Amino acid sequence: MTEINHRRADHPIHSIFLERWSPRAFTGEEIGEKDLLALFEAARWAPSASNLQPWRFVYARHGTEHFARLLSTLDEGNQRWAKNASALVIILSKTHRVTSTGELRPAYTHAFDTGASWFALALQTQLAGWHAHAMAGVDREKAMQVLGVPEHYRVEAAVAIGRIADPSTLPGDLREREKPSQRKPVSELVFEGRFTGE
Amino acid sequence: MTEINHRRADHPIHSIFLERWSPRAFTGEEIGEKDLLALFEAARWAPSASNLQPWRFVYARHGTEHFARLLSTLDEGNQRWAKNASALVIILSKTHRVTSTGELRPAYTHAFDTGASWFALALQTQLAGWHAHAMAGVDREKAMQVLGVPEHYRVEAAVAIGRIADPSTLPGDLREREKPSQRKPVSELVFEGRFTGE
Repeated sequence: MTEINHRRADHPIHSIFLERWSPRAFTGEEIGEKDLLALFEAARWAPSASNLQPWRFVYARHGTEHFARLLSTLDEGNQRWAKNASALVIILSKTHRVTSTGELRPAYTHAFDTGASWFALALQTQLAGWHAHAMAGVDREKAMQVLGVPEHYRVEAAVAIGRIADPSTLPGDLREREKPSQRKPVSELVFEGRFTGE
Repeated sequence: MTEINHRRADHPIHSIFLERWSPRAFTGEEIGEKDLLALFEAARWAPSASNLQPWRFVYARHGTEHFARLLSTLDEGNQRWAKNASALVIILSKTHRVTSTGELRPAYTHAFDTGASWFALALQTQLAGWHAHAMAGVDREKAMQVLGVPEHYRVEAAVAIGRIADPSTLPGDLREREKPSQRKPVSELVFEGRFTGE
């Protein structure tokens, strides 16, 4: 079957799913605003419950006044390498929806739908010759403050976007981990009729 | 710019993002088990926090004993058309992770990461000549029972997968809605430096 990036697909799939991965070695070069917005264009077309489109993105491009501020919301371990990203993005989801009677109700799938949008962003980024690396390691309270995020929004993740650089540019411990990760076999993830996992 | 399915991209993106949509008119024909598992193969390679891979999928193919059981967990409005799917899928996420010291801790991004995996499934489905339609309208407690899902898992969504059929096969109210939906403009979703949405 398809083998790319030392990854082996057990069933035939489009190569983009194996090609996409999350490096840490970035060149730090500038990304044009138009080039960046084109990546969000793909994210925009993701599906969502009742087409609510709960995803929101706050970005900072390398070389702008905003970059250091967004970088400061990441965990220190992530700042070490994400400082060389061409752009940083904080992904937010809208946690509530307004009903037809004007009531504010929790939106059950806000994080799930926003994850779909994130993957569209990740794929288009890869297709455009860039790489995207999402991080759960972000100080979410600080990000809410620094970005001016009102209530009823949730910080889902941060993302570093950039051109891939040689792994030798990374600190030693990260250099060793700079390769596409593997996955669990389908048999641990997919079940017929009933859930029989652990 | 790219225009597909009456959808217009404001920035250049790969056509698959516009081509993918969620129809309700399905033919009800059988899907081979191998063909179905190949769709989950793409879902498997999605990114997740610490590579935890929190996504799980329970499926039932049309014509098997499991199909009616999965169908019964959907809202009645969805059962009307999803009964003609070639396969139904319940998407679960693992809500907790085990720490290095053996402690059970909530996994912040379980729904978000599972949403990414769902979008990989949706795209591969589209690329393989099928269509996928996710539904938030599922009785989640019933699905947990019927599928034998243990605690520390969450029902995220249900999905109908099938070959697209003529809209005339749908009940009148659904027939009128049988077209790709539009999206908010990028300016309502993407912000530089600070969140200035509503």
